[in-house]
Amino acid sequence: MKAAVFGTGMVGRTIAARLVELGHSVTMGTRDPEATLARTEADAMGAQPFAGWAAENGDVTLARFADAASGADLIVNATNGGASLEVLTHAGAANLDGKIILDIANPLDFSNGMPPTLFVKDTDSLAEQIQRAFPAARVVKSLNTMNADLMAHPGQLADPGTVFVSGNDSDAKETVTVLLKDFGHQDVIDLGDISTARGTEMLLPVWLRLWGALGTPAFNFKIVR
Amino acid sequence: MKAAVFGTGMVGRTIAARLVELGHSVTMGTRDPEATLARTEADAMGAQPFAGWAAENGDVTLARFADAASGADLIVNATNGGASLEVLTHAGAANLDGKIILDIANPLDFSNGMPPTLFVKDTDSLAEQIQRAFPAARVVKSLNTMNADLMAHPGQLADPGTVFVSGNDSDAKETVTVLLKDFGHQDVIDLGDISTARGTEMLLPVWLRLWGALGTPAFNFKIVR
Repeated sequence: MKAAVFGTGMVGRTIAARLVELGHSVTMGTRDPEATLARTEADAMGAQPFAGWAAENGDVTLARFADAASGADLIVNATNGGASLEVLTHAGAANLDGKIILDIANPLDFSNGMPPTLFVKDTDSLAEQIQRAFPAARVVKSLNTMNADLMAHPGQLADPGTVFVSGNDSDAKETVTVLLKDFGHQDVIDLGDISTARGTEMLLPVWLRLWGALGTPAFNFKIVR
Repeated sequence: MKAAVFGTGMVGRTIAARLVELGHSVTMGTRDPEATLARTEADAMGAQPFAGWAAENGDVTLARFADAASGADLIVNATNGGASLEVLTHAGAANLDGKIILDIANPLDFSNGMPPTLFVKDTDSLAEQIQRAFPAARVVKSLNTMNADLMAHPGQLADPGTVFVSGNDSDAKETVTVLLKDFGHQDVIDLGDISTARGTEMLLPVWLRLWGALGTPAFNFKIVR
């Protein structure tokens, strides 16, 4: 598969590296590739400057959002939730038509301090906002309920837990489900249409509290039944 | 323990019966015991009229909210979330002082149809509203993340999953944790203070979608780590 990964932070890098590891062709999207490669400071999450990471991951290419999207079958939205709509608009609706957008972002709002709140919830979701903004794209919400390491390598946990998919297009959900299983996920639950992403995005507040209570982000939700 | 269970619907009945089964003394609270016993119709959830259930559960007594609370060490709030503050006010703050309020209700709002939304979320929670309204009570949020049968008999599932507790009073959380283990819960996670109830109350939207996707309410969240 030809994949574009939007977002050059820790989450985007982890997904990009995993896709390459599985034999996919990956272009990472950014606003200004030269500026991204020129950064010399660690990002807010402590990730090394992109150029250093890119040097160690030579199979991943970097391009403007539109160029990355135009050649891709799958676009992974690993941007900050608050920037996702703007970034996808930069990519250009025509470059997203018919494409699968695997939306792994969360609508976190850090403007009121920690813990963050959600800027959309309960009656709408980030995934639905993206689907409404790009009606010809096929949005699938998934992976947003765990940390990046577990998204890509769930087998780190003795029991990897459950991953959810939400979306209006069955074929797109099936393609994503195959990819999730390639990543190592074993229990994939199809919750239904894209509005079910409200539920998984609303898992973030308890996820953040669990991180605090357990002292590690190496945990996942599992649906026992 | 002397327990008062507020709410005479399916959830309250299930908890009351389980407490009796474990040897506790249980009084169920209602606004008007005569009126509750005089009902001849099944309730909105299809539960048989209370009098029939009470006849089969002779060890459970019925009293006005205030009378039920005054003699109890533990008050279980199994009312509809939208009615909880009013019901607890009926019980009288003096009857709640120093008592543990085990809040198992959810702030569900059915006024906009199905699926219900939450009338408080993310920046506040029903549990916090109760704690603020009755500052001398010791509110513990728990059990609200699963259906009533599993609250009381989690061993129905081969793996019972996880139950969460939130509250400001460590002793109250410890008492509730012992009770939860008596119910059959094995994995109890203390999330922290009462504000962490925001996270567990926000699990309801995905719980409702999972019920739809799985076709059964016989499932639970488990935190694998």
